[in-house]
Amino acid sequence: MTELEQLRLKLREFAAERDWDQFHSPKNLAMALSVEASELVECFQWLTEEQSRALSAQQLAAVTDEIADIQLYLIRLADKLDVDIRSAVSEKFKKNEAKYPADKVRGSAKKYNEY
Amino acid sequence: MTELEQLRLKLREFAAERDWDQFHSPKNLAMALSVEASELVECFQWLTEEQSRALSAQQLAAVTDEIADIQLYLIRLADKLDVDIRSAVSEKFKKNEAKYPADKVRGSAKKYNEY
Amino acid sequence: MTELEQLRLKLREFAAERDWDQFHSPKNLAMALSVEASELVECFQWLTEEQSRALSAQQLAAVTDEIADIQLYLIRLADKLDVDIRSAVSEKFKKNEAKYPADKVRGSAKKYNEY
Amino acid sequence: MTELEQLRLKLREFAAERDWDQFHSPKNLAMALSVEASELVECFQWLTEEQSRALSAQQLAAVTDEIADIQLYLIRLADKLDVDIRSAVSEKFKKNEAKYPADKVRGSAKKYNEY
Repeated sequence: MTELEQLRLKLREFAAERDWDQFHSPKNLAMALSVEASELVECFQWLTEEQSRALSAQQLAAVTDEIADIQLYLIRLADKLDVDIRSAVSEKFKKNEAKYPADKVRGSAKKYNEY
Repeated sequence: MTELEQLRLKLREFAAERDWDQFHSPKNLAMALSVEASELVECFQWLTEEQSRALSAQQLAAVTDEIADIQLYLIRLADKLDVDIRSAVSEKFKKNEAKYPADKVRGSAKKYNEY
Repeated sequence: MTELEQLRLKLREFAAERDWDQFHSPKNLAMALSVEASELVECFQWLTEEQSRALSAQQLAAVTDEIADIQLYLIRLADKLDVDIRSAVSEKFKKNEAKYPADKVRGSAKKYNEY
Repeated sequence: MTELEQLRLKLREFAAERDWDQFHSPKNLAMALSVEASELVECFQWLTEEQSRALSAQQLAAVTDEIADIQLYLIRLADKLDVDIRSAVSEKFKKNEAKYPADKVRGSAKKYNEY
C-alpha cells in the first residue's frame, strides 16, 4: 500500500470516529483547503522572495504545519470524490510536458512573462 | 523510494530543464498553490453541497485536474524548503488526534459549530 | 469628495505615518487581500447555505470585520496602481450587462449551471 | 446617496432581473469573492515586487478588471447580510489606529517582521 493510500484510510477513519462526514461535502472540503492555502500565503506575504528562501526555524515550522494541512485536506477531498491522486498527478505531468517542451520554453520562460 | 519522493525528483528535473528555478521562490510557489486552490473552489462555488457530491464526468475531470495542480505545487514548495511532507503530515495527524479526541467531539462536532 | 476617495487618502496617510509603503508593493497587497478573502470564507466553510443566511450576532461581527479588511486593502491596492475603483466598477457593470442580458439568462441561469 | 449605496441598489436590481438571488447565499458569495481575489493574485504571482509596481497597460487592464469584480462581490455580499460597508470600514480604521500607534510601530514595522 502506498503512503497516499495509507493516509486516505487513516483520514477516513478519523472522520468516521468523529462523525464528521456530514460536514465533509466536496464543496466544504474545497473551501477548507483554500483557507489553508491562504494561511500558507500569509506566512510569506510581507517577506521578500529572498527572505522566503531563508526562513527562520519558527517560520519554517509554521509553513510546515500549513503544508501538512493542505496535504490532508487534499487527500480527504480526493477520497470523497473517488479521485486517485497518483494517476491524476501522472496525467497532469504528461500534459505539462506536452504544453511546455523544454527546448522551446527554456530561457524565454514565456509562460511566466507573457500574461 | 516512495511516490512523493519520486514526484519530488521529477518536478525538480522538470523545472531545471526549463530553467524555471528562478521563478520558484517559496513566496511565489505559495501564491501559485493558492491560485490553484481557488480554481478548485471555483468548480464548486455555485453548486449546492448535494450537487458537489454528484459531479458530472466533465465537472469531475476539471476537479481532478485542479487536485493534481495543487499536489504538484505542494511537492515543489516542500522540496524548495526541504520539508518532508510525509513527516509533516504524520506530526499533524498526532496533533489533530490530541486536539479532537473522538469521544469528546463526536456528535457535538463543536469544532464546526462554535466559531 | 466621495467616500472611496476619502478612504484612499486616509489609508495613504496611515501607511505614510508608519513607514509601511516599503511593504505595500501591489504584489504584496494582492496577497494580503486574498488572505483576508479567505478569512471571510473561513467564517462560512462549515455552514450550510441556509445557516449562512442567518448568522448569529457573533458570526456577523466576524464577517463584518473581514468585509472591512477586504475593502481597505482593495482601496489601498487601487491607490498604489492609480486605478479608479469607481470607473473600474462602472466599466465592469457595462460588460456584465452585455454578457448576461436579462431576458436571455433569466430562469436558465446558465452561467451557474453550465460549467 | 453615496456611491456604494448606488452600487448596492444597481447590483440588487441586476440579480433580481436575472433571478440569481437563489445562487447568492452569503456562503456562495464569499467563495466567489475569494476566487476573484485569487485571480488578482494570479496577475502578480510570477512578477517581482518591482515589476508589480510597473505594470504594462495590458497587465493593468487585467488587474483593474479583477479589482472591479472584487468590489462588486463585496458590495453584493454586504447587501445580503445588511452590513454597512461604510461604518464597517470606519470601525476597522479606529481599531487599526489603536492597534498600531504610529509612534510605536514606525521604523520597526514589527507587524511585518515578527510573524
